Amino acid sequence: MQTDLSALLQQALKALDYGQQPATLYDPIRYIMGLGGKRLRPLLTLLGGQLFTDELAPLVKPALATEVFHNFTLVHDDLMDQAPLRRGQPTVHEKWNASTAILSGDVMLVRAYELLFENVPLAVLPQVLRRFSQTAAEVCEGQQWDMNFETETTVSIAQYIDMIRLKTAVLLGFALELGAVLAGANADDAEHLRQFGTDIGLAFQLRDDLLDVYGDAATFGKRVGGDIISDKKTFLLLTAQAQADSAQQATLASHLGQPVRDAEAKVRAVRAIYDELDIRPQTEALINEYFQAALQHLERVAAPAARKQPLHHLALQLMDRES
Amino acid sequence: MQTDLSALLQQALKALDYGQQPATLYDPIRYIMGLGGKRLRPLLTLLGGQLFTDELAPLVKPALATEVFHNFTLVHDDLMDQAPLRRGQPTVHEKWNASTAILSGDVMLVRAYELLFENVPLAVLPQVLRRFSQTAAEVCEGQQWDMNFETETTVSIAQYIDMIRLKTAVLLGFALELGAVLAGANADDAEHLRQFGTDIGLAFQLRDDLLDVYGDAATFGKRVGGDIISDKKTFLLLTAQAQADSAQQATLASHLGQPVRDAEAKVRAVRAIYDELDIRPQTEALINEYFQAALQHLERVAAPAARKQPLHHLALQLMDRES
Repeated sequence: MQTDLSALLQQALKALDYGQQPATLYDPIRYIMGLGGKRLRPLLTLLGGQLFTDELAPLVKPALATEVFHNFTLVHDDLMDQAPLRRGQPTVHEKWNASTAILSGDVMLVRAYELLFENVPLAVLPQVLRRFSQTAAEVCEGQQWDMNFETETTVSIAQYIDMIRLKTAVLLGFALELGAVLAGANADDAEHLRQFGTDIGLAFQLRDDLLDVYGDAATFGKRVGGDIISDKKTFLLLTAQAQADSAQQATLASHLGQPVRDAEAKVRAVRAIYDELDIRPQTEALINEYFQAALQHLERVAAPAARKQPLHHLALQLMDRES
Repeated sequence: MQTDLSALLQQALKALDYGQQPATLYDPIRYIMGLGGKRLRPLLTLLGGQLFTDELAPLVKPALATEVFHNFTLVHDDLMDQAPLRRGQPTVHEKWNASTAILSGDVMLVRAYELLFENVPLAVLPQVLRRFSQTAAEVCEGQQWDMNFETETTVSIAQYIDMIRLKTAVLLGFALELGAVLAGANADDAEHLRQFGTDIGLAFQLRDDLLDVYGDAATFGKRVGGDIISDKKTFLLLTAQAQADSAQQATLASHLGQPVRDAEAKVRAVRAIYDELDIRPQTEALINEYFQAALQHLERVAAPAARKQPLHHLALQLMDRES
């Protein structure tokens, strides 16, 4: 099922025409869209739709709007974060320049809207556009909070969870809701699917935070300990700071906001405090909480259990991933 | 008429809610939208609409989409051009930073779409969204061509005209077309108004190029000669390069692409060549050509002459402006 749908999406992605001239505007779009990735968001749209219909062909192009939008955020976020690599390849602003990353990204946002209003039935178009725009603004809000947190001294765990909800989770929720709405689901089912996607997104991002510290370097794909080295205020660090005794506070303070002399030593020292405070099982418990909440929302969707199996399977895959 | 409509737009602009939190995302939007300006684009939408209807209230919010979109392009363009000032005040990336300019601009593009789909009747919504998106992509294409031209050695006059058409003129054309469509005009009339706006836009931009060289420093608002100092490939320079004899070519070449030692001397020398080649009357002739073509399109719109008077008056104002 998932393999078939992925192939369908891949084929439709290849056929998308973003524009031709000037090539300096459109080549970067083809480049970033061609770098691959799991195509998770449009896959969620199709899996959300197939709960209610076997006619998935009309859902494919609207589904791609979420993928084009996601890649637009990657192009602009990578520029803001000055990231050199994306999926192991140079980022758009590195391969071209900052202006190209800004402008090509802008056109991608326009193309995402086009994929929706050119392919969504008029009866649900205003609703879909409203929810897409709300989600798009929320993703920008999440990125802004994330940047704000870099220079703020006190960030609460609740603020952090809200940030990852906006930056990452709401788009997964919208992708599923979109599939449900396009497949004719009622408002309750669409809402349960949205919440399923949002909770899975939260669990997914928390798992990413966990893997950054406890992942296997061979399979994680990113440098293990990267968040610790860069003083990133993750759920793990914020929880540790909230629970540390004065000695542990002092150790943390001696490493945070300081020039990194020995990265390995910093990672070892901070991880030692995480271990002392049982941060790993606490994080796993919260991940499991969101995962169970997600499954309960899926449970409450009025569709045959057999049709829910692929979504259930995908959710498990996302939780088991080592990268 | 125009004063009443401007007041109506101003009032509606003040009432717009772009969002609240994080303030670092939404304050810059309120800031740039509050810097003023002529509000030319939404005014064109209302003047286009009042050719066909007296009920302008439903057009106000969709009209503001063009103003929010225009200001989005200013925020991103100013960042790309590293411009320090906009309407005499610090640009968004100067007052905040580059990331804020990128992200606040992104949200403005989303809000522009919202102003359209929340307020445009369903019967014409797909058409309006299609034309808006096409225009938005064209404006980005124009900005990309403009940046490309900075490093290209040969730019033709036709390429330059096409660049300013995309970067500036098509949005004026869309603003008028939007007013016509929302007021129930037929396709022919909407198309004539679009072409009226596009031709006025071309004349307007060429007049801007002319004023940069021959404007009155006291009223122009920008530094006279700025385009010459920065080697900007305007219609005036490209025409001069196409018509210069070998001595004039040599003089131009001695000033272009060189570090500027004496800006005043450079402006005087290049302007002297423009004078020798009658570049000013040639530019005025082309401006007049576009202006007359615009008026012919307005002429062909099936609406009472009295109703065309405000648009005619505005077009004349735009041509007479000294700033």
